[in-house]
Amino acid sequence: MEHQASQFILYLIMILVAAKLFGELAERIGQPPVLGELVAGIVLGSSILGWITVPSHGAMSLSIGGILLLAQLGVILLLFEVGLESDLEEFLRVGPSALLVAVIGVVGPFVVGYYTSRLLGMGAHTAIFIGATLTATSVGITARTFSDLGRLRTPEAKVILGAAVIDDVLGLIILAIVTSLVANGSVSGCQIGITAGLAIAFLVGAIVIGVSVTPHLLSVAKRLRTRGILTISAFLFCLILAFVAEQLRLAAIVGAFAAGLVLARTEDLAHIQARIKPIADILVPIFFVSVGLSVDLGAFKGRETLSLIGILVLVATTMKLLSGVGVLRKGLSRTVVGVGMIPRGEVGLIFAVAGRALGVIDAREYTAIVAVVVITTFITPPLLKLILAGARKRPVEA
Amino acid sequence: MEHQASQFILYLIMILVAAKLFGELAERIGQPPVLGELVAGIVLGSSILGWITVPSHGAMSLSIGGILLLAQLGVILLLFEVGLESDLEEFLRVGPSALLVAVIGVVGPFVVGYYTSRLLGMGAHTAIFIGATLTATSVGITARTFSDLGRLRTPEAKVILGAAVIDDVLGLIILAIVTSLVANGSVSGCQIGITAGLAIAFLVGAIVIGVSVTPHLLSVAKRLRTRGILTISAFLFCLILAFVAEQLRLAAIVGAFAAGLVLARTEDLAHIQARIKPIADILVPIFFVSVGLSVDLGAFKGRETLSLIGILVLVATTMKLLSGVGVLRKGLSRTVVGVGMIPRGEVGLIFAVAGRALGVIDAREYTAIVAVVVITTFITPPLLKLILAGARKRPVEA
Repeated sequence: MEHQASQFILYLIMILVAAKLFGELAERIGQPPVLGELVAGIVLGSSILGWITVPSHGAMSLSIGGILLLAQLGVILLLFEVGLESDLEEFLRVGPSALLVAVIGVVGPFVVGYYTSRLLGMGAHTAIFIGATLTATSVGITARTFSDLGRLRTPEAKVILGAAVIDDVLGLIILAIVTSLVANGSVSGCQIGITAGLAIAFLVGAIVIGVSVTPHLLSVAKRLRTRGILTISAFLFCLILAFVAEQLRLAAIVGAFAAGLVLARTEDLAHIQARIKPIADILVPIFFVSVGLSVDLGAFKGRETLSLIGILVLVATTMKLLSGVGVLRKGLSRTVVGVGMIPRGEVGLIFAVAGRALGVIDAREYTAIVAVVVITTFITPPLLKLILAGARKRPVEA
Repeated sequence: MEHQASQFILYLIMILVAAKLFGELAERIGQPPVLGELVAGIVLGSSILGWITVPSHGAMSLSIGGILLLAQLGVILLLFEVGLESDLEEFLRVGPSALLVAVIGVVGPFVVGYYTSRLLGMGAHTAIFIGATLTATSVGITARTFSDLGRLRTPEAKVILGAAVIDDVLGLIILAIVTSLVANGSVSGCQIGITAGLAIAFLVGAIVIGVSVTPHLLSVAKRLRTRGILTISAFLFCLILAFVAEQLRLAAIVGAFAAGLVLARTEDLAHIQARIKPIADILVPIFFVSVGLSVDLGAFKGRETLSLIGILVLVATTMKLLSGVGVLRKGLSRTVVGVGMIPRGEVGLIFAVAGRALGVIDAREYTAIVAVVVITTFITPPLLKLILAGARKRPVEA
């Protein structure tokens, strides 16, 4: 235990230093820090330095296991924060355009991704997971890119952000359905209905009950005198919904997201965000670095993997571009919306990790998915700059 | 991994709920919350509910191991916070009284505790550890008690707090010496000198170098653009000094305390405290609950343990009362100072856990030490109230 604790602290130091180092480098070359954190993991992992190696299965040391448990807490807190930042009402106002863009942007990549994977000879479960990883647009990366370009208040940006949030919710429902299907071992229409119903019922139920109950719970908590009660209450609320979601065979992050949505509507939102942020600042990078740790660069050697990555990037890009046709309002650039939807991010990686844990995604496919996330995220900022510069010169198409 | 992660989250939920529940109960009956957290651990542990059982040695599940690693981070952050809250200069002003009280209050319990343990038939290493656990006054519990009684600004309170901080530092140096002696297997005067020198050199060196270097490091860090850089920088600084201290065969918490002292002198102190506090709010209770988890109430059955507890409580109480004679300034109540020094707390428990990890403290002795900490902490608030009420009626002795 003594030695494991000291090793665990050393791992934490290496992971956080590398995350900030590569995150800062990414920022400096105009890329989101999350990409730097993925690269940090790849560099520390077995492919390059070999300082931290994660066994793909079987027993692992307590120090590595502790890091992976912290990474799990990190992804739970990430989705909790996304939930806290989501304003359901504001997005309802952006209206039908965002919804249509989101649905096209989820259905297109999922269906085409599924059939492409089947054509490449994969099993049904694997194909479902790969299709699912292609669905979710990264809210964080998209928002950051528009903000960096000073275009966050344009109508295009609002449609994209609205669609990206709906995307994330649809993506989480798909993850719940897919996880449950794989766990139960069969894919029947009836079960899809039950799981989708359960996922929607959990989200809606947690939000409806939560919104009416949490103000009372918080006012009780505030009457307690012990230190840090608001931090612990919010953290516990997130953990409990995550645990319940997992017991219902949904993903833990679905529960964390629901907890965030509920607390987003309380008057203590600002205090809760201020207290959860430092915890997330430490834990979230551990998740992204740990995703990179599991990447096996050796898998890139085969022509097969390279062509798989190429095909998946093609599907991911064209199907999200297509989602731009969902824009109903006149005067908006469908190309800008389509390109803005391209970056995959956190949710895609969460799918990859979940698929790996369930044993339906192998090392090659995992590496390919991470590559797709990295590539789609890398190409978007320059592509968007290019199109926005062009759109400014000539009048925008209706 | 999937199952372990879900079990880990369940443990976290149980620990945090129980910590807040019993912590609140302790507050309501006029006791410090830390006592409630210890009791929470005893209730969840194998002695009562058996919901969370920590194997005393050998292999353990990843979920339990993960909790113990978080507890380690918790105690590191606790000492980091104590360091952040310490103002070296203010305590230098309280002057010789505090120093003399502290030295008498450390040497007395240590020497008498050591010889008493030897008389009771214990080995030299065990006796050294038991003597050491009796040395450190709990800054937190003492300050809290005086604050609850509205006497925090009296000269007695300042002497006690000054002495308690010096106590903690002396205690940490003793822990470093004792840990190193046990690890090296021998107790020679030369080695005591080397270890004490190393401990003091590390503390002084870390503070002197740290104070001159950290402002530059922080100004570099603030020029970085990535999110949460101040939180991560402060957290990393603490982890790195903890790791270095451990590599020098000092305790990790000595490094964490030094890191806190250094950052306490930077202009960003308030920001750092605000960001570290929510993380500590979650992790510190996990440490105290985990201390309670390892308590074996079955050990109380033997008359031997009960008499051991009785003897240790007697030594702990009388020797700290004696430290009141160190008060040099006139007009101060030596009895109030002596009673104020009685509560043992965090550092005593840290000794017990460290001794357990090194194999020199067995289950019975561990339980006895936790009992001494609990009893000395329980008796102080009512005793202090009684004496302060008496002191108000008649003039204070010189």
